[in-house]
Amino acid sequence: MSKQKTAISPTREENYPEWYQQVIKAADLAEASAVRGCMIIKPWGYAIWENMQRQLDDMFKATGHTNAYFPLFIPLSYFEREAEHVEGFAKECAIVTHYRLIPGPDGGLIPDPEAKLDEPLIVRPTSETIINEAFSRWVQSYRDLPILMNQWCNIVRWEMRTRLFLRTSEFLWQEGHTVHATKEEAIEETHRMHEVYARFAEDFCAIPVIKGPKTSSERFPGAEDTYTIESMMQDRKALQAGTSHFLGQNFAKVFNIEYSDADGKLVKAWTTSWGMTTRMIGALVMTHGDDDGLVLPPKLAPHHVVIIPITFKSDNPEAIVEYCNTLRDALQGTMYDGKPIRVHMDQRDMRGGDKIWSWVKKGVPIRIEVGQRDMDADSVFMARRDKSPKDKAGVPRAEFLANAVSILEEIQNKILEKAKAFRAEYTRVIDDKEEFYDFFTAKSKDPQRPEIHGGFALTHWSGSEEVEKQINKDLSVSIRCIPMEGQMDNCHEPGVCPFDGGESPQRVLWAKSY
Amino acid sequence: MSKQKTAISPTREENYPEWYQQVIKAADLAEASAVRGCMIIKPWGYAIWENMQRQLDDMFKATGHTNAYFPLFIPLSYFEREAEHVEGFAKECAIVTHYRLIPGPDGGLIPDPEAKLDEPLIVRPTSETIINEAFSRWVQSYRDLPILMNQWCNIVRWEMRTRLFLRTSEFLWQEGHTVHATKEEAIEETHRMHEVYARFAEDFCAIPVIKGPKTSSERFPGAEDTYTIESMMQDRKALQAGTSHFLGQNFAKVFNIEYSDADGKLVKAWTTSWGMTTRMIGALVMTHGDDDGLVLPPKLAPHHVVIIPITFKSDNPEAIVEYCNTLRDALQGTMYDGKPIRVHMDQRDMRGGDKIWSWVKKGVPIRIEVGQRDMDADSVFMARRDKSPKDKAGVPRAEFLANAVSILEEIQNKILEKAKAFRAEYTRVIDDKEEFYDFFTAKSKDPQRPEIHGGFALTHWSGSEEVEKQINKDLSVSIRCIPMEGQMDNCHEPGVCPFDGGESPQRVLWAKSY
Repeated sequence: MSKQKTAISPTREENYPEWYQQVIKAADLAEASAVRGCMIIKPWGYAIWENMQRQLDDMFKATGHTNAYFPLFIPLSYFEREAEHVEGFAKECAIVTHYRLIPGPDGGLIPDPEAKLDEPLIVRPTSETIINEAFSRWVQSYRDLPILMNQWCNIVRWEMRTRLFLRTSEFLWQEGHTVHATKEEAIEETHRMHEVYARFAEDFCAIPVIKGPKTSSERFPGAEDTYTIESMMQDRKALQAGTSHFLGQNFAKVFNIEYSDADGKLVKAWTTSWGMTTRMIGALVMTHGDDDGLVLPPKLAPHHVVIIPITFKSDNPEAIVEYCNTLRDALQGTMYDGKPIRVHMDQRDMRGGDKIWSWVKKGVPIRIEVGQRDMDADSVFMARRDKSPKDKAGVPRAEFLANAVSILEEIQNKILEKAKAFRAEYTRVIDDKEEFYDFFTAKSKDPQRPEIHGGFALTHWSGSEEVEKQINKDLSVSIRCIPMEGQMDNCHEPGVCPFDGGESPQRVLWAKSY
Repeated sequence: MSKQKTAISPTREENYPEWYQQVIKAADLAEASAVRGCMIIKPWGYAIWENMQRQLDDMFKATGHTNAYFPLFIPLSYFEREAEHVEGFAKECAIVTHYRLIPGPDGGLIPDPEAKLDEPLIVRPTSETIINEAFSRWVQSYRDLPILMNQWCNIVRWEMRTRLFLRTSEFLWQEGHTVHATKEEAIEETHRMHEVYARFAEDFCAIPVIKGPKTSSERFPGAEDTYTIESMMQDRKALQAGTSHFLGQNFAKVFNIEYSDADGKLVKAWTTSWGMTTRMIGALVMTHGDDDGLVLPPKLAPHHVVIIPITFKSDNPEAIVEYCNTLRDALQGTMYDGKPIRVHMDQRDMRGGDKIWSWVKKGVPIRIEVGQRDMDADSVFMARRDKSPKDKAGVPRAEFLANAVSILEEIQNKILEKAKAFRAEYTRVIDDKEEFYDFFTAKSKDPQRPEIHGGFALTHWSGSEEVEKQINKDLSVSIRCIPMEGQMDNCHEPGVCPFDGGESPQRVLWAKSY
């Protein structure tokens, strides 16, 4: 560690994609498995996911939703019913065709030809079809509405080019599915959950997001409208962090979800769906991580504080451990974000330097080291993950205890502000086509170094899909969303599209994306 | 409801299997889906599972385990490595063979022959193989041990005869997997988690269990020893509620899990696994349910108390609702089992009788009804689910609030004691073969009524697998476990096997089972 300047090599500047992989490895978040495109989420990564789940689940329940569980497998015939939907997912799904193995001619096992399914089953790439089919049975009267459900589960989409957390063949998520009596209520629900995602991203993940609808070419297959939250990663690309879909009556029609209203008349219902995935862990890495590894927002950190007793130079190691135990107990008796502070005491038998760096790389907000001299002075050595790893200082124990919660709050706020400032720095209003093309063209010619391009561009847009296609083809840039009011300046006045000269009601957000 | 004596028809006595299905339906726990053998777990059933999860998860974490997530798919070649293991699961697994759909000749979609997997993937029927393969990469030194992991996930075993919760092609569970440096530590872990399951069953599910190892014929495929907890359902059959497996070095050998010890010598490790499933919801139904529906142990009930304002006869319905709100707030401010009391206020627009019976059928521990007269008297009408639905009485509000926690505790204890008494009543020590055969022969000749046989039998057993097989063939009765010390009288003295006259070290537990 002493020879290199940073804990992660390469740095973000040197090779961003490789830096990302190395942070995941150094923080022990996840790894690739022997199954193509499927990841193993390791305990540190899973603990972050558990914290995300708990928070989101509370927000879903506070907005009236209940959890349920629907089958992993979807009959092919269900899947085929909604034309756009099947078109969107048929190219990337895992298909179960047999239900038994038998010894094959070469000694190994083979799928038993006698045990071939009459109808293949699709491993769910999303559950609109199977859930809306159930809804059609559950909804009879207007009294049954609304139905507000969510499920936490695994999802399979057969991706050809995968990347841990960002794009894997299997991932974990939640998917909300709701049925409403009226179009207005369904749209209101779509917006409500869109807002829940935005609040979760900003208030818990410390990831600033831009909210808005997708253009028609970027909508969820089968949706009337898709609302997204888009965040900027440190390579200035966009990451779609959560989506909320107004499905109109598309699924209600194909699955025949009807209710009798107060007058006994049969009426078609309206549905929504919305989802957020383990991809958010990738977003955390790429928003807050630095060249020493992961930086965790305190609200989602599995440990808020790690205490490391430094006993090797001491005559009385037991006393140091006891001193640390007392410190731990005092912290655990203190509430942060409505729950006791999460403290971990690290007494592993390993070199002190490696131990310290392991927690830096894992992104723990506060690190405490206690040696003989600290104990003698009734103090602790404290380091904050939002500052340099070397920037640690002795603090009186009582002072640290009194300030622990406000330090966590400060870190949470500071990393959000930092991410906001970064995004502001690399977001530009552009009214000229040439400038736009230049903005999205990488300047480095070094093939070893990844392109770093401009970032987010706000331009007017005529609404032409031709323009979208051409720009996507030329620059691999797409419209991430049509920003909603109240988020950014210079966005909501009408103007002229710099690409085809058409009229434009407002500016839209362009970026390269994950 | 007024014409029939019980809310569930048929009664347990009339037709136990059908009663079971009807309770699940009446309590709205789950239903069959269009996918053969896969169930939809509805919100009330899933909320019970969430409470089970939270409790078990706390117990796993308190014993040093962390959660992780491993892939849904297992490569066939992994699956084949442990001979007994594959033998045990090959006949009932879902096999993924393709990863893309294309339009077929008849207009529908078909698996794309060009997108056939080189190696089929098995949808996990259990994860020993894929997890132990990962362990082999993670374990290098004795310092890496023990590894104590758990995952919550879905599991697929292609069952031909399915029954909601008890036997379904897909179910939810947790599976713990651990690696240890020594045999002793692995055995200790196996016992520790066996004990955690027993405590969970008795202290939270109020289900009394008998603990002990399985005989070799009933072991988990690939295990050296399987420890089970066995409970008696109200049809006197046994249900295996959780198992903990000492895997010896079987998986460590085939996946090569080795560590270098303190002297640098390479040593093979020892592993365990243990699991509990959504089947426990079925066990709850069959242990505590009565002819009016589900009876929930308070510790797992999604609502502890349901409050029903009876407003239709009142001049001032708002005042009643306000009175109920105040009651709800007071209850929510009271702690039961370490958490605030879970209260639900039911203001649905439906007939009062139907509303009351819906909560009886769902098994909510305490039901409160408040009408004008109750409010005027500053009292509530209270009914307990462990008593008759008609047995409700007015109680002063303050008295109810003061006693709510002790009532919940009393219900929790009482249903456990009731289940213990039931089991004691139908458990018999038998030393004679004829008596044994008679005990397990149903007395009713009515084909419309299911067999009700004796229950649990404790007999001596020589250890002969022949005897086990013959009895299983004759009576569909198996040895559920070899009871461990300290649980039952008349079990641990040596004796003579009534079936083949062989010597027997102790009595074993026989029963029909789910």
